[in-house]
Amino acid sequence: MKKQYLLTPGPTPIPPEVALKEALPILHHRTSEFAAIYKDAAEGLKYVFQTKNDVYMLAGSGTGAMEMAVVNLLSPGDEIIVASCGNFGDRWIKIAETYGVKVTSVSVPWGNAVKPAEIEKALKANSNIKAVYTTFTETSTGVVNDIKSIGEIVAKTNAVLVVDSISGLGGQEFRTDEWKVDVNVCGSQKGLMLAPGLAFISFSEKAWKLAETSKIPKFYYDIKKYKKSFASNETPFTPPVTLIVALRESLRMIKEKGIENMWNDYKLLAKAARAGMKAIGLELFGEVPCEVVTSAKVPEEIGGKIVKTLREKYGVSIAGGQGDLKGKIIRFAHMGYIGKADLLVGFACLEMVLAELGMKIEKGKAVAAAEEELIKG
Amino acid sequence: MKKQYLLTPGPTPIPPEVALKEALPILHHRTSEFAAIYKDAAEGLKYVFQTKNDVYMLAGSGTGAMEMAVVNLLSPGDEIIVASCGNFGDRWIKIAETYGVKVTSVSVPWGNAVKPAEIEKALKANSNIKAVYTTFTETSTGVVNDIKSIGEIVAKTNAVLVVDSISGLGGQEFRTDEWKVDVNVCGSQKGLMLAPGLAFISFSEKAWKLAETSKIPKFYYDIKKYKKSFASNETPFTPPVTLIVALRESLRMIKEKGIENMWNDYKLLAKAARAGMKAIGLELFGEVPCEVVTSAKVPEEIGGKIVKTLREKYGVSIAGGQGDLKGKIIRFAHMGYIGKADLLVGFACLEMVLAELGMKIEKGKAVAAAEEELIKG
Repeated sequence: MKKQYLLTPGPTPIPPEVALKEALPILHHRTSEFAAIYKDAAEGLKYVFQTKNDVYMLAGSGTGAMEMAVVNLLSPGDEIIVASCGNFGDRWIKIAETYGVKVTSVSVPWGNAVKPAEIEKALKANSNIKAVYTTFTETSTGVVNDIKSIGEIVAKTNAVLVVDSISGLGGQEFRTDEWKVDVNVCGSQKGLMLAPGLAFISFSEKAWKLAETSKIPKFYYDIKKYKKSFASNETPFTPPVTLIVALRESLRMIKEKGIENMWNDYKLLAKAARAGMKAIGLELFGEVPCEVVTSAKVPEEIGGKIVKTLREKYGVSIAGGQGDLKGKIIRFAHMGYIGKADLLVGFACLEMVLAELGMKIEKGKAVAAAEEELIKG
Repeated sequence: MKKQYLLTPGPTPIPPEVALKEALPILHHRTSEFAAIYKDAAEGLKYVFQTKNDVYMLAGSGTGAMEMAVVNLLSPGDEIIVASCGNFGDRWIKIAETYGVKVTSVSVPWGNAVKPAEIEKALKANSNIKAVYTTFTETSTGVVNDIKSIGEIVAKTNAVLVVDSISGLGGQEFRTDEWKVDVNVCGSQKGLMLAPGLAFISFSEKAWKLAETSKIPKFYYDIKKYKKSFASNETPFTPPVTLIVALRESLRMIKEKGIENMWNDYKLLAKAARAGMKAIGLELFGEVPCEVVTSAKVPEEIGGKIVKTLREKYGVSIAGGQGDLKGKIIRFAHMGYIGKADLLVGFACLEMVLAELGMKIEKGKAVAAAEEELIKG
């Protein structure tokens, strides 16, 4: 009976209109009925990705699509650059090294944003670089990277730019084609307002060209199989039918609202979230805060207890830090189906928990500061 | 507005009680609430698998779990036996060869069942064989293989037995441990009465030992990651939360009914389906028909039209043949949430379509023959 409020950076809350689609009688996936739904969803994905290229769907976690972006482009011994600024950026390194790919890391400490100039330097230093892998919004720290600048740099070289936009797409301005992103990898459970279990990937012509040289073996993740099936609105292996039916609905809602309006809404929520954190005496974390999750430092003596207390006492789920940041930061998401009122619920309960854990705060101040920003609009 | 009746061998119809669980507000996957659901589901899977070993869940199609059973056990150059009798058995060969594994095929023509004696001979002829890969119920033909006998043969050797039970588990007697199956691979959308998107895999001690020697690179499919997370009721990557919540419900229903009672129900449906096919003048296809899908030969001049007409005119989905069997057989499923009345709906509409396509049949005969068997029980 405990009412739950989800303010985590994935899964994010799902609109009831979308969730209910998952409960509809299941369709067979090799029928004209499903093909029509698949086609609609594929069109919707192009819009959200802001790309003219096809976006393939696969059953899997976002990490599966990340692996797809490694095994389809590279061969053992190939050299790549990874620009990481957190847990998910580091995952590129782990996947690449698993497959015998040589990684030049231009990573920065967690909390910083990656430096486009460093990528440029590394590219100039080594003309063998096949691809640059990076992250759009690094959820583990709440930092956003300047993909547009990185795109301009990489586009001038023979290297392919691969971006993990899993946690940011739909929540913050991202333009795959305009920003010259060759491979864009995404998941269902963040900005797209859907349950986890579906992953997405788009490939530019430059990426397809590199893929021709790839020698890493692959079967389930072989993107050529997906390309071939895509032409007849199918997937090579049984797709997660209910998730795709729900996806069509969430994409319909996003299209109806307009992607720019979505971005603007989250930008405002981010402004309000940052104001709320500061008003309550919590220092913001992260060099360049993204617009889908707000991170703040918390006193070490209570840091490990905030997330658990919020959830157990008030049913409010936010996220804590990962890795070295465990117990040191909290992460408050405003992506997916999260509105102004949800943000205020989060701050009100956070105030109570901080007070209960012994931090000296003035109750109501975070809420007031957030309200102020929300009213300004 | 056209009412749909699903009689396909995956996806199969989903009980509304299960489907509605997919529409519940989403839970975060790193919470005690989700861990409890995950634990329940994992216990239920052990029961359906009839194994004492842990059963791991992953986001993916069944093929993903098949790939997991290849990349975690083998190294390039390793030798295996594949006993295939259809499209899905052949997939083992394709996956293994993708990873540089040498395959000795003891496959049989589509429609036949694999020969345990041939597997025994091949094992005796080559002591380097690391594993034997085969299929339980081969959905592409409707044939069931004698896994129990194969298990006895393989258990006497150093080889590991890997079985794809994707389309049969829950629908026909299968005992992982008693039949000495080392690795059992399954999917969600068949006998487990769930939407596609979840895959399962169990590993015996013998399999874990072989896995220690495996040198094929893997990241998302690295089963050690799943084993490690399993200990704390988690998955290494974001799991398909809504599907797992629904899985717990379908497994609860299966447990409540009793797995042996499920098997008996489908056995009766299979008997009735075979009687119906014969009564209408269609010859059964397959050397050893399984109990989850019934295949029958159809006249070539109308073979390509039956499935489409049934679906378009009456909303009834059955399956046709795959590969060389396209247009030559129809496949009528009785697995998952399919009951006696559904079978009769299928036969009644099949009678109409066969008559409409010009086949000389006596209307009502298939239905009558099926009824006869169903009443006998």
